[in-house]
Amino acid sequence: MPDSASLLSDGPAIVLVEPQLGENIGTAARAMANFGLKDLRIVNPREGWPNEKANAAASRADHVIARARVFPTVEAAVADLGFLLATTARSRALAKPVIGPKEAAGALRGRAETAIRGGILFGRERIGLMNEELSLADAIVTLPIDPDYASLNIAQAVLILAYEWRLSGFSDEKAALPFGRPDDPPATKDEVLHLFEHLESALDAAQFFRPPERRPSVVESLRAMLQRASLTGQEVRTLRGVIAALERRPTRPREREDGSLTTERGD
Amino acid sequence: MPDSASLLSDGPAIVLVEPQLGENIGTAARAMANFGLKDLRIVNPREGWPNEKANAAASRADHVIARARVFPTVEAAVADLGFLLATTARSRALAKPVIGPKEAAGALRGRAETAIRGGILFGRERIGLMNEELSLADAIVTLPIDPDYASLNIAQAVLILAYEWRLSGFSDEKAALPFGRPDDPPATKDEVLHLFEHLESALDAAQFFRPPERRPSVVESLRAMLQRASLTGQEVRTLRGVIAALERRPTRPREREDGSLTTERGD
Repeated sequence: MPDSASLLSDGPAIVLVEPQLGENIGTAARAMANFGLKDLRIVNPREGWPNEKANAAASRADHVIARARVFPTVEAAVADLGFLLATTARSRALAKPVIGPKEAAGALRGRAETAIRGGILFGRERIGLMNEELSLADAIVTLPIDPDYASLNIAQAVLILAYEWRLSGFSDEKAALPFGRPDDPPATKDEVLHLFEHLESALDAAQFFRPPERRPSVVESLRAMLQRASLTGQEVRTLRGVIAALERRPTRPREREDGSLTTERGD
Repeated sequence: MPDSASLLSDGPAIVLVEPQLGENIGTAARAMANFGLKDLRIVNPREGWPNEKANAAASRADHVIARARVFPTVEAAVADLGFLLATTARSRALAKPVIGPKEAAGALRGRAETAIRGGILFGRERIGLMNEELSLADAIVTLPIDPDYASLNIAQAVLILAYEWRLSGFSDEKAALPFGRPDDPPATKDEVLHLFEHLESALDAAQFFRPPERRPSVVESLRAMLQRASLTGQEVRTLRGVIAALERRPTRPREREDGSLTTERGD
């Protein structure tokens, strides 16, 4: 009985059925590695195994290639699985549920969480999976491709399913990203307000607001623009330097008696 | 001013910045075609343009290659866009929002619906995008890859974004799939009930239920199994034939006086 922690960390088994080209095995391994899948199974690869072209195409996904297992038949490759999906790009007469990659990932993750090992069958380059191979599966997975141009290769299909598998492990997309916006903290409302006042007093001095009745609406529009930019504290300081430079004032902020900074004259 | 119908049908502009290999342009075009994108722009391709290797790798995505436009600079390639995203695999010091492919697709579709042309920048094979190119963008897109193995090629990044663009045009994943379960209609409850009764009377005759007190729970379990299979009408008829064959009864259903079918004897 597998444990759910190792199933969740390895991801579902990716079973390539009779792939013709080593290169496709390598690019599929790379797609797996990109999204954290580790269990690659290959049924009767035409070029034999190990395969130099697979290694070359796998780029740095050596760990997936090194762990890959070769089986003589599909039945042997899926024997230990409790839940099996099969990919196909064409409608088949089989009366099985047809699901998309997101639902597939959710179903596989649900099984893994209850210690049921799942896998996905991927067919041969040209002819896909045979009906008797499809009949082993609990459901058919297909991708939401443009029906006018259905020509996804194996590694691309593996990539989309691996991508959805990885996403399914996070509460939302943002949590799954490897990095976020650099954490330069946003400016406080006080810093932003001082920027507004600095800009507006500089514009008053330059007699920018003409006629004066229009001042309130122009001020409002300038403030809206700056607000929308979600400035960081550093950016506010940069902009105050810019305004000061245009005013021909000293750009180095000075400390006020109360400890706050200013670039204004005679404060 | 572009119209929203053509923006929605062409999809966002895919801008490849100084791609080194024609093959990558071709596989990117193919990824676009799979998910219905049409506007490919190439900035200063190293091998020149047109490119035989791009054509070969594009497979049947000739229509994307034929419409592709080449520009001398990134600025020229994005000049007509009102919303621009830039892909990067590494965290950068730029203070810009960082979003995932799903949010990116939603943002691009929202713009297209209001007739704003959007696009996505993809960087060079090895070194990605320069900081001054990233600074043209409204936001950074990155993919939820495994940080221990970040090595997505251009066509793979295009594929994921094109996939999310296509999904974003449908109310749910199921609606985006090119086909569903074959529409052999599900069995009616009446057909299923007659199957249950047929099976149970055959098992009664074979004295399967022993001790007889266990009959109700075994019947319940058999019915649950069959119910879970969501049988079609055709499958129910097949199973009744199977039971009749095992009973050594005639397998051809006969018509009753009321017009219903039966495989039972002496009805």
